[in-house]
Amino acid sequence: MKTLPVLLIVLFTAITLSAQQVGSYYFSKTIKGTFEEVTAKTKAELKKQGFGVITEIDMDAKLLEKLDDVDLKPYKILGVCSPPYAWQTIHVDENIGLFLPYKVLVKDLGDGKVEVVMVDPAALIGMLDKEELVNIADKISEKFRSALKNI
Amino acid sequence: MKTLPVLLIVLFTAITLSAQQVGSYYFSKTIKGTFEEVTAKTKAELKKQGFGVITEIDMDAKLLEKLDDVDLKPYKILGVCSPPYAWQTIHVDENIGLFLPYKVLVKDLGDGKVEVVMVDPAALIGMLDKEELVNIADKISEKFRSALKNI
Repeated sequence: MKTLPVLLIVLFTAITLSAQQVGSYYFSKTIKGTFEEVTAKTKAELKKQGFGVITEIDMDAKLLEKLDDVDLKPYKILGVCSPPYAWQTIHVDENIGLFLPYKVLVKDLGDGKVEVVMVDPAALIGMLDKEELVNIADKISEKFRSALKNI
Repeated sequence: MKTLPVLLIVLFTAITLSAQQVGSYYFSKTIKGTFEEVTAKTKAELKKQGFGVITEIDMDAKLLEKLDDVDLKPYKILGVCSPPYAWQTIHVDENIGLFLPYKVLVKDLGDGKVEVVMVDPAALIGMLDKEELVNIADKISEKFRSALKNI
């Protein structure tokens, strides 16, 4: 009967850890301002941290091109990349390109509010399961957090 | 002392499960042909499955723009998206845009061999932890597998 409490503790720990991973794959912040202002500020702060925007998709417009019943508020998907980090990480795992560029969303919530959502690069890179990438992943995440803080 | 074997079994199961998740986030195939031929065929097969290429990054050229010491063979990151699926899934979780468009890599391996690597959309969508998305995610993954099979 001694095994049961141990089993429960181990299972509880496993569930808690798994719950932390889920839901920790992005950082977000809601800001007052126009969609254009927040988009420009987001790009500027990412640039200060060394990340360039290399792709930009207006998802609302893109969906409307193909579908009739779309009523999505302005929703931008920015693809951001730091060439030095990309080059460093691609050496360790060539398939890291599956996660590049990292995505940052700018979403118009209405009522003068705009949400910026940044994927947590460490969560994505974690999927590659490469010990050598953990430090770089943490550095990239830290820079994303700093950019978001300053928007 | 009875607790130890149970603990070991639980830990072994946890490690096994975690190992299955890791490494199952992409599908890949190596094909004989030129880089251009394989890229064109990849796009054509994805289109047949309903996926359009909405972003295209030549990673080797992009890195060379900013860095001097890059010697990457041709390496393309295609961003592919199916508007109906994107619209269906965005309703369930607005942050799914963090994973869109899905990435497909075309990598020149040299010696007339080219590798196509497709992210497994189900693995990415799994990070959102939304029960309602599991069926759609599986359908999208199935279409990716079919495209890859036909390249």
